[in-house]
Amino acid sequence: MTPVITAFEDSPDRGEGQARDMRVRWALEEVGQPYDVRLVSFEEMKQPAHRALHPFGQIPTYQEGDLALFESGAIILHIAGRHVGLLPDDPNARARAIAWMFAALNTVEPPIVECEAAMILESDKSWHEERLAMLEERIRVRLGQLSTRLGDADWLDGAFSAGDLLMVTVLRRLDGWDMLEKFPNLSAYVARGEARPAYKRAFADQLAVFTGRLLAD
Amino acid sequence: MTPVITAFEDSPDRGEGQARDMRVRWALEEVGQPYDVRLVSFEEMKQPAHRALHPFGQIPTYQEGDLALFESGAIILHIAGRHVGLLPDDPNARARAIAWMFAALNTVEPPIVECEAAMILESDKSWHEERLAMLEERIRVRLGQLSTRLGDADWLDGAFSAGDLLMVTVLRRLDGWDMLEKFPNLSAYVARGEARPAYKRAFADQLAVFTGRLLAD
Repeated sequence: MTPVITAFEDSPDRGEGQARDMRVRWALEEVGQPYDVRLVSFEEMKQPAHRALHPFGQIPTYQEGDLALFESGAIILHIAGRHVGLLPDDPNARARAIAWMFAALNTVEPPIVECEAAMILESDKSWHEERLAMLEERIRVRLGQLSTRLGDADWLDGAFSAGDLLMVTVLRRLDGWDMLEKFPNLSAYVARGEARPAYKRAFADQLAVFTGRLLAD
Repeated sequence: MTPVITAFEDSPDRGEGQARDMRVRWALEEVGQPYDVRLVSFEEMKQPAHRALHPFGQIPTYQEGDLALFESGAIILHIAGRHVGLLPDDPNARARAIAWMFAALNTVEPPIVECEAAMILESDKSWHEERLAMLEERIRVRLGQLSTRLGDADWLDGAFSAGDLLMVTVLRRLDGWDMLEKFPNLSAYVARGEARPAYKRAFADQLAVFTGRLLAD
């Protein structure tokens, strides 16, 4: 049964891999699981049919037979449980890798998303510059802590895992912010993630939705 | 091997169950697993010994033999994997319950935390009132979507699960905000969670740290 995921029909980031379907695509590529993509418009995402799949009207969703899932973290954990390649076999190492999945989504990503929201929604407000400085400082604190923990290791805890996959995609949100560059080991960590063949295949496929090249091939 | 968790020595919420050790205590009570608590001061949380357990210097942490975990979501998932009572046996229902864990932490909680941060850190700013209204509206949107999905069910997907446990603790952050009350089914949902014997034991134990009653017993 080939799983089906949803992705934006009209990619807000112009296919630069920031939409959350990228995370699921990458995970599926890492484990060698073929999948289909169903593109949805912003209008469709508000409709009851999509809300039945995703109560909060977002992407990605994941359907496999009679299983329907939402939340990219949960989808990736499900994929990791069915296939080899995203989580270690040793139970303790596996639990630690899952802790990094939650850390990426709950501890590192929220201040970045908050800062993005401020840039988009509050750029015309009188308070914008002052608030942005506060938000950027919160991100820097998290990056400093993450940089300290990573040290000179290749990945966060032993071999590459779903925890690294999520952390790399979270850190990629800072592309062009001149912030990650202050932490050379984190920049190198993101580059290692982006260099993985599975990442490259996933990136090319989500970019093809935007450029339309997939249809032209 | 009795697990050991960490909690605030000096509880910022005066023991009202908002600190994240409450979530782990509740999960351990649901499965009937005894545990020990090690209290840490804010000063200790900054030290290398604590950072070795929690890279971001927060609580709770979880230690069990030679396993050390951080992130309450990951800790609860670990507990749910070792014991009966927090996740359904059926693989698809289990995956859906885990999706609700991620939804609670990644989709519903962030706008609430952001609003709390604004109340604490920005109450003296000229922009405070205007921004607060924006943030409250973002929370209301999420609550409306959650309320629609819950409908007249007792729990989010069949029997009580770790997804409900996390969602109830997330919604409890809105205590006293006069916001949850606009969604009677969500208020009733939180009340159902708080009525569980395991919740009550966990709440009493974390309150006892603040009141000092535990030491006096």
